[in-house]
Amino acid sequence: MNTPITAEILQQLDRIVGSAYLFTDEETRNHYGHDETEDYVFPPSVVIKPGTPEEISAILKVANEHKIPVTAIGARTGLSGGALSIHQGIGLSMERFNKILNIDEKNLQVIVEPAVITQVLREAVAEKKLFYPPDPSSQGSCWIGGNVAENSGGARAVKYGVTKDYVLNLEVVLANGEIIWTGANTLKNSTGYNLTQLMVGSEGTLGIITKIVMKLLPQNTHNVLMLVPFYNANEACEAVSAIFRAGIVPSALEFMERDAIDWTLKFVPNLNVTVKDEIQAHLLIEVDGNYPEILFAEAEKIMAVVEQFQIDEVLFADTEDQKNALWKMRRSVAEAVKANSIYKEEDTVVPRFELPILLNGIKGIGNKYGFKSICYGHAGDGNLHVNIIKDTMSDENWKTEVPKGIREIFELTVALKGTLSGEHGIGYVQKNFMDIAFSETHLQLMKGIKTIFDPNGILNPGKIFPDNK
Amino acid sequence: MNTPITAEILQQLDRIVGSAYLFTDEETRNHYGHDETEDYVFPPSVVIKPGTPEEISAILKVANEHKIPVTAIGARTGLSGGALSIHQGIGLSMERFNKILNIDEKNLQVIVEPAVITQVLREAVAEKKLFYPPDPSSQGSCWIGGNVAENSGGARAVKYGVTKDYVLNLEVVLANGEIIWTGANTLKNSTGYNLTQLMVGSEGTLGIITKIVMKLLPQNTHNVLMLVPFYNANEACEAVSAIFRAGIVPSALEFMERDAIDWTLKFVPNLNVTVKDEIQAHLLIEVDGNYPEILFAEAEKIMAVVEQFQIDEVLFADTEDQKNALWKMRRSVAEAVKANSIYKEEDTVVPRFELPILLNGIKGIGNKYGFKSICYGHAGDGNLHVNIIKDTMSDENWKTEVPKGIREIFELTVALKGTLSGEHGIGYVQKNFMDIAFSETHLQLMKGIKTIFDPNGILNPGKIFPDNK
Repeated sequence: MNTPITAEILQQLDRIVGSAYLFTDEETRNHYGHDETEDYVFPPSVVIKPGTPEEISAILKVANEHKIPVTAIGARTGLSGGALSIHQGIGLSMERFNKILNIDEKNLQVIVEPAVITQVLREAVAEKKLFYPPDPSSQGSCWIGGNVAENSGGARAVKYGVTKDYVLNLEVVLANGEIIWTGANTLKNSTGYNLTQLMVGSEGTLGIITKIVMKLLPQNTHNVLMLVPFYNANEACEAVSAIFRAGIVPSALEFMERDAIDWTLKFVPNLNVTVKDEIQAHLLIEVDGNYPEILFAEAEKIMAVVEQFQIDEVLFADTEDQKNALWKMRRSVAEAVKANSIYKEEDTVVPRFELPILLNGIKGIGNKYGFKSICYGHAGDGNLHVNIIKDTMSDENWKTEVPKGIREIFELTVALKGTLSGEHGIGYVQKNFMDIAFSETHLQLMKGIKTIFDPNGILNPGKIFPDNK
Repeated sequence: MNTPITAEILQQLDRIVGSAYLFTDEETRNHYGHDETEDYVFPPSVVIKPGTPEEISAILKVANEHKIPVTAIGARTGLSGGALSIHQGIGLSMERFNKILNIDEKNLQVIVEPAVITQVLREAVAEKKLFYPPDPSSQGSCWIGGNVAENSGGARAVKYGVTKDYVLNLEVVLANGEIIWTGANTLKNSTGYNLTQLMVGSEGTLGIITKIVMKLLPQNTHNVLMLVPFYNANEACEAVSAIFRAGIVPSALEFMERDAIDWTLKFVPNLNVTVKDEIQAHLLIEVDGNYPEILFAEAEKIMAVVEQFQIDEVLFADTEDQKNALWKMRRSVAEAVKANSIYKEEDTVVPRFELPILLNGIKGIGNKYGFKSICYGHAGDGNLHVNIIKDTMSDENWKTEVPKGIREIFELTVALKGTLSGEHGIGYVQKNFMDIAFSETHLQLMKGIKTIFDPNGILNPGKIFPDNK
């Protein structure tokens, strides 16, 4: 699909949004043509910045009539290429939908537009002593709409769940321009098919999200954060499952391989963390709640668990500054790796007890195909990010051998009852691995749903589904 | 749709399951022709009790070829008629799928077949110090498969969520006989459309669920239960929201009108609860956790909130027996009403702060159309059960006036950003009210999804969708 946008269509679009919000210059198109996925650039033919759901409705009617691709563009922090206009067409930047419409303290809910930065939302509700838990590592720049589109997670998912667990209702503009609310603003709902949850994680392929109703929790007041150094990376993975089996649900349980920390300490100055040579991995563990004495008791239980493994001295973050430094370290790993080498990022997820097998398997597959990987991520929910490093690998091998290795990693993941992506989405870069997780029948069901919502296939074409489907 | 089952088709079915598991006698058909929904009886033409997913696959292939309706039948405790064979055909009793296949302590997961009684599942995991929170009032007799099909809730949903929040992955036999797993056994998943959540709450219209993978939590060790009598029912509703605004998330927050308690105390002997004449409503409030001193502190905070309203002396349940009695009282309301009069049960749900408006509105609508209602339910998540009592109303008015009143109740519910059903499902009895919650476009999307999964419309026909759709 690559329908050209004629001068007449461009005029129609211009009449809808006004020329101040329509761009065809190369610089703007390039700017909106990339996200954080490797070094891909796919500029749309035209960038449009609508201001209301009604304008989006009018745009989609035109696009649907002329079969022009429409790709919703968020903060462009995505790691699976979900916002890339790979078939050109209209790049629909959502940036003007940037308001928190209502923080409903009486019902513990918030109504928000998609272009609000996740951290801005979290801080705005925190001011009212409310808590929006999902905190992707990119929370300082990503948008809540992108979080909904990709079903983003983050460190706190282990205790509080992912984006989908907070979405109650969505205003969506459908491919034909009609506007619907997918559900109701209620905590319980058994009224017809759950189109809200179908929309979450659908990566802009089923409709354009214009308003989001989310549930909130009362804000917690305290937390305890500890960094545990392990002499053996596998033991760090084993400890993850042991902590839960001791009856603790930490509010974060993050794993970092040795290299992840080394690269990050070089990349981010003044973190003030030192690591002994023999340490092979760290767990960053947080518990939260309202009663410090309980949190100290839980931290002691965690200590009793991790001390059964070969660990070095545990660092307890005593001050807010120290906590921020540890979190900054963890959240900067991806950037640090990116600054160091060309890389590909996989977002594997398995039941958490299978983590040691997954980690060993990945290293073995790397040896077989000649690549190094840096592994880190949300170990508490079995979500291991695998950064495959190009380093000194030849371009030829990077192109031919690495995809074979990635396929084997995903095959292992699925064999362990896991799947391809825990929180980044499939988007552009993982779509040709979908056959590993899903049968032909299964993919045809998904494709059938796509066709019901978007008969002309205008919404974010070339994503999720394998090229030959 | 009402395709007759010929002798030849019956023979084919017999060859699949064996004659010990195929029944055409009237007694069996009648037995499987009703659930707990009013006094409806819709016997299937044949009752089949398959033993494996493969047998179900073979049955569906036959049914799909001959366009014979197939209605999955669970414990028949449903309140919306989801399991009624209203177009006859095959009644597919799932009763042989009654095993807990694996309690995975390492990953805090359970794999269970659909015909396991919810309470049996809860107790089996509790023995391993694990916690499956959803607890519908019918938990002693309903099945987990029915809970998934209707997205059941229960009292603990207010803190722990509903069935959908625990379902990770489903084995499903599709209408064409193919067997798929909908997702992965992981806590995070951003891999294609969320068919797992589409299946939850789809009331047997998209596929037959044969295995369920659910997440579990570590078991809590303590709870505090209190019964708060209010002199004013509206104030009881107002207190619900005030408790959350004080930063407390109770593990249960149940509302019972005066009549609900009176009828229940008459129906269930020896509950040993006395209620002063002037009391108009009760809240049953539970907090849970691992640290008794924290729970007492939270109970005190709750006391500080409810004391701002006109309340009588609060009863703290001191013993397990007293706790069981209070829960038995709450869980017996529906049965008590049923034993007292012909009634219709609605399952309204709104954002919790709107509860007083909903309650007042329902009483006003009752006055207008001449019916009495008894209201109770899961006030913490805005889920109010409305039992409309026939009592001395004429049959004529019961048939003509009550449906008008129900329509107005639902219109009010939707105007308050709520919806038709919080946890019972739409099934047979609410389907003709769906136009209140959904536009034509929206219903057509749902219908489109139905057609993708079940092109011949054999799975539980006559449910969810309005008759004219």
